[in-house]
Amino acid sequence: MVRIRYERVSGRSVERLAALSDGVFAVAMTLLVLDLHVPVRDAIHSEADLCQALTPLAPRLLIYVMSFLMLGIIWVGQQTQMNHVANSDRHYTWIHLVFLLAVSLMPFSTSLMAEFIEYRLALLTYWLNVAALGLMLFIGWRYAIKTGLVRDEVDAETARGIGRRIVMAQSLYALGALLCVISTYWSIGFIVLVQLNYAIGPSWWGRSRA
Amino acid sequence: MVRIRYERVSGRSVERLAALSDGVFAVAMTLLVLDLHVPVRDAIHSEADLCQALTPLAPRLLIYVMSFLMLGIIWVGQQTQMNHVANSDRHYTWIHLVFLLAVSLMPFSTSLMAEFIEYRLALLTYWLNVAALGLMLFIGWRYAIKTGLVRDEVDAETARGIGRRIVMAQSLYALGALLCVISTYWSIGFIVLVQLNYAIGPSWWGRSRA
Amino acid sequence: MVRIRYERVSGRSVERLAALSDGVFAVAMTLLVLDLHVPVRDAIHSEADLCQALTPLAPRLLIYVMSFLMLGIIWVGQQTQMNHVANSDRHYTWIHLVFLLAVSLMPFSTSLMAEFIEYRLALLTYWLNVAALGLMLFIGWRYAIKTGLVRDEVDAETARGIGRRIVMAQSLYALGALLCVISTYWSIGFIVLVQLNYAIGPSWWGRSRA
Amino acid sequence: MVRIRYERVSGRSVERLAALSDGVFAVAMTLLVLDLHVPVRDAIHSEADLCQALTPLAPRLLIYVMSFLMLGIIWVGQQTQMNHVANSDRHYTWIHLVFLLAVSLMPFSTSLMAEFIEYRLALLTYWLNVAALGLMLFIGWRYAIKTGLVRDEVDAETARGIGRRIVMAQSLYALGALLCVISTYWSIGFIVLVQLNYAIGPSWWGRSRA
Repeated sequence: MVRIRYERVSGRSVERLAALSDGVFAVAMTLLVLDLHVPVRDAIHSEADLCQALTPLAPRLLIYVMSFLMLGIIWVGQQTQMNHVANSDRHYTWIHLVFLLAVSLMPFSTSLMAEFIEYRLALLTYWLNVAALGLMLFIGWRYAIKTGLVRDEVDAETARGIGRRIVMAQSLYALGALLCVISTYWSIGFIVLVQLNYAIGPSWWGRSRA
Repeated sequence: MVRIRYERVSGRSVERLAALSDGVFAVAMTLLVLDLHVPVRDAIHSEADLCQALTPLAPRLLIYVMSFLMLGIIWVGQQTQMNHVANSDRHYTWIHLVFLLAVSLMPFSTSLMAEFIEYRLALLTYWLNVAALGLMLFIGWRYAIKTGLVRDEVDAETARGIGRRIVMAQSLYALGALLCVISTYWSIGFIVLVQLNYAIGPSWWGRSRA
Repeated sequence: MVRIRYERVSGRSVERLAALSDGVFAVAMTLLVLDLHVPVRDAIHSEADLCQALTPLAPRLLIYVMSFLMLGIIWVGQQTQMNHVANSDRHYTWIHLVFLLAVSLMPFSTSLMAEFIEYRLALLTYWLNVAALGLMLFIGWRYAIKTGLVRDEVDAETARGIGRRIVMAQSLYALGALLCVISTYWSIGFIVLVQLNYAIGPSWWGRSRA
Repeated sequence: MVRIRYERVSGRSVERLAALSDGVFAVAMTLLVLDLHVPVRDAIHSEADLCQALTPLAPRLLIYVMSFLMLGIIWVGQQTQMNHVANSDRHYTWIHLVFLLAVSLMPFSTSLMAEFIEYRLALLTYWLNVAALGLMLFIGWRYAIKTGLVRDEVDAETARGIGRRIVMAQSLYALGALLCVISTYWSIGFIVLVQLNYAIGPSWWGRSRA
């Protein structure tokens, strides 16, 4: 009985779940760059020195941009899902809390990959993190459909479309991760291409699927 | 007279108190992982080296996951309480500010326990922090009921149920902390089991209590 | 003309100003504790060692609690002010942005005082920061009254009361800062007492003023 | 078809985009100051020592204040733009995500300039960051107008005015950056003057343009 009352009230909590999510994403996105250290003053005596000291930061910056894009894609995905969801319950909240745990691990995975860019283990750790994000989003969506948390206007076609979208994206990331048997640079290049497709080209992609 | 006016206006502030809470939780949750340091580059020369350097991070990661779950449980508890509360006043706001102080201390307690996992003092510090969270939540709920801040639709049964839920959870955590007379690992294992029960099994738990 | 349109639209921005404020407060409050470092593992060999290593953290913790309370008091003050304000404009927004600049400096002032607890310069820096917070809140309130941004239901008595409240609190903090001619510990003790009065005893204080 | 549904739902997401933006700005603004390190205890033996140790922080503090003002100006700009926008879509969201990426890089650019205040490369990096912020804001505004995302009440005159405002400000920052051929201090001085004009004197500026 108490449980039923809990569920009734926590229906309003989609908003606070969204607020907590935005907070965690905002902190994680900004912390990514925190590992980009300014060169140590003592070794720099001219503009050329500074230029030389900043050059090794370029590949790191690339990794951070890639992670920012990844968090952006995932954020858009979570937001789209939540826009389709009318109510939340304890389980749905917990699925998203585990999702946020994976978000909060992204700065670590990113640092690891930025530091060990040519190591497969670093790339696989990063990919595992991204896969966990996709998995929790997918579980959340399936759960929302099964328990009737989604809005009434969401028809079966849209519901399947959103699920398929996650599976498709994650398959491409997995393929990218697999490319590390050739070289981790191939993996990163492929993943960045997939990301740009999602960030810049969604309408083209949407059309090609229709 | 001024005080009465203050109270009338601060009634709208439940939303800002919720917003501040979500912010503090979001930062605390993300900072937890900030102490997970990437291995130093110089000592790593192969995938095997990296694997070996990452292995000691595993128990630390476990502690962070445990703290994330704990903050998640506490956040769900605070949110449920606030959903039952129609208005706030100065005292209720201050009870929650002290609650947030305890939230902001969690990254420290967690780091301490992660660093000194087999030390009872570290575990007891962590437990004290968790107990402070539970205590402030409980005080907040009792205060809200006594001063009529709760919504009209909350009946005495629900009110008692929510209070009992906090007492029950905190008793289990205290029992877990007590297990450190055997070993801190027993304490951690027990607390994680209690957490999983709250995160994964609330419906089972709800049913068994009915 | 463009300016008039700007002002019309920025009227809705009180909410986003509040959201930004809650974010800055949440980050500042949580960062306070970030300077509380866990003892280094190597030097610790027993529970007694750990206890001894944690003891010097106690005064630091006190300073952090004090700063958290201070940010809490200031946050409640800003929130109360904003609840009385119906619209914002560019100038009001900028007054609060400078206010937030002072909020973001609090972790630095706090660290400085925690590190140099018996130095007058550290205490005065801290006090200057707190005084800047009070000053900007006061300027914001005066500006809101003069330009008619406050809600219609706010009468002259309430308006003056809120202003006086800031002046009163800041006078007490200034008095506390002045006590550093005797000792910085006197200052800190006095300020903590004033804070506890605001946090715990507002109804008593309100009554004694009526 | 799925794409059309996506767009319909993401119309509600302006609010979450605003929430994420406020979060990123709040973290970036507070992190700016995190690089302001408290002097090391061991070297300080008197008030005079502490004073001497704090003096070199003054120019750094100036840079942080300047960056805070810059983020404030940009935040006000983004907020004004979003207040004019009724709906969002995927592309608009992505333009603002790239904008937020530039925001999250500001603490790095600021640290770099604070550390290498007399180096042109540091100043140009900082300016590039600011220029990216302005560019993304401008692209976002143009896109919103072209695709009809702006509110109905926004007429062509206002639309052009907002765009021109960004171009004007960015031209002044570019001019400031150019002044580094003389000295980076000239650049900083000029940029601070432009900022103060925007922060303190918008009504004067608005009038002079009318």
